[in-house]
Amino acid sequence: MFCAIADGSGPATRVYEDDEVVAFLDIRPIARGHTLVIPRVHTARLEELDPASGAAVFRAGQRIARAMARSELATDGTNLVLNDGRAAFQTVFHTHLHLLPRWNGDRVRMGIGLVRRRPHDPETTAAIIRAGLERLTAEEHQ
Amino acid sequence: MFCAIADGSGPATRVYEDDEVVAFLDIRPIARGHTLVIPRVHTARLEELDPASGAAVFRAGQRIARAMARSELATDGTNLVLNDGRAAFQTVFHTHLHLLPRWNGDRVRMGIGLVRRRPHDPETTAAIIRAGLERLTAEEHQ
Repeated sequence: MFCAIADGSGPATRVYEDDEVVAFLDIRPIARGHTLVIPRVHTARLEELDPASGAAVFRAGQRIARAMARSELATDGTNLVLNDGRAAFQTVFHTHLHLLPRWNGDRVRMGIGLVRRRPHDPETTAAIIRAGLERLTAEEHQ
Repeated sequence: MFCAIADGSGPATRVYEDDEVVAFLDIRPIARGHTLVIPRVHTARLEELDPASGAAVFRAGQRIARAMARSELATDGTNLVLNDGRAAFQTVFHTHLHLLPRWNGDRVRMGIGLVRRRPHDPETTAAIIRAGLERLTAEEHQ
């Protein structure tokens, strides 16, 4: 499924993409803006992942986290999580980095999100994150 | 405290280091082999972290995770976790990536580890991980 997203043929609410990675909203988000970053090249496990590709995934993750803080989501923090292997709760075997947006005092909300995992108007959410990325790019070119 | 580890003056049970990063055992490990990877250059948040430095942290994390699978720790998986911001449970404000070793069927053990957070013979554990890294390097040069 993630491979179809990576090659552009599968549906996903995309927030960012380049030659090496694609970032899109998790269809079962724990919180609004919960994003996954995947490498274009399929690898199930860290064992096979090209280190340059892994670095690109992380770099995109860092950038999107910074963009979310600048966006209307106005995040206060982010958990970046990569679960490698079934023992580590990996369920989809195409390497992916979770970006979980966080806000001060969000523990109760996160607890509910963990149970519900329902989308929050994905098109609008993705547009908000893309606008945050544009804001970040504009800052960098000042 | 992490800055003193990064510049070599502070005590830590080191498992790996290069020009850009240092990896050492967490002093309050959730599981045996729980390792932290930090950039040499101090940054509190992802906002300030040089993306190249972040990529180096992730690259080292991937490599150490692969080494742990080859070591006597014989891990089945790893959680790679970077908590950015107090809202995301960041407690030490020097960016660090957690490598949490996982084994099939370890849920009860992890639950206990989360509460106890006690070291497991750090010197031996670090030597085991370093031996895993040597094994990985030897494989790559075959």
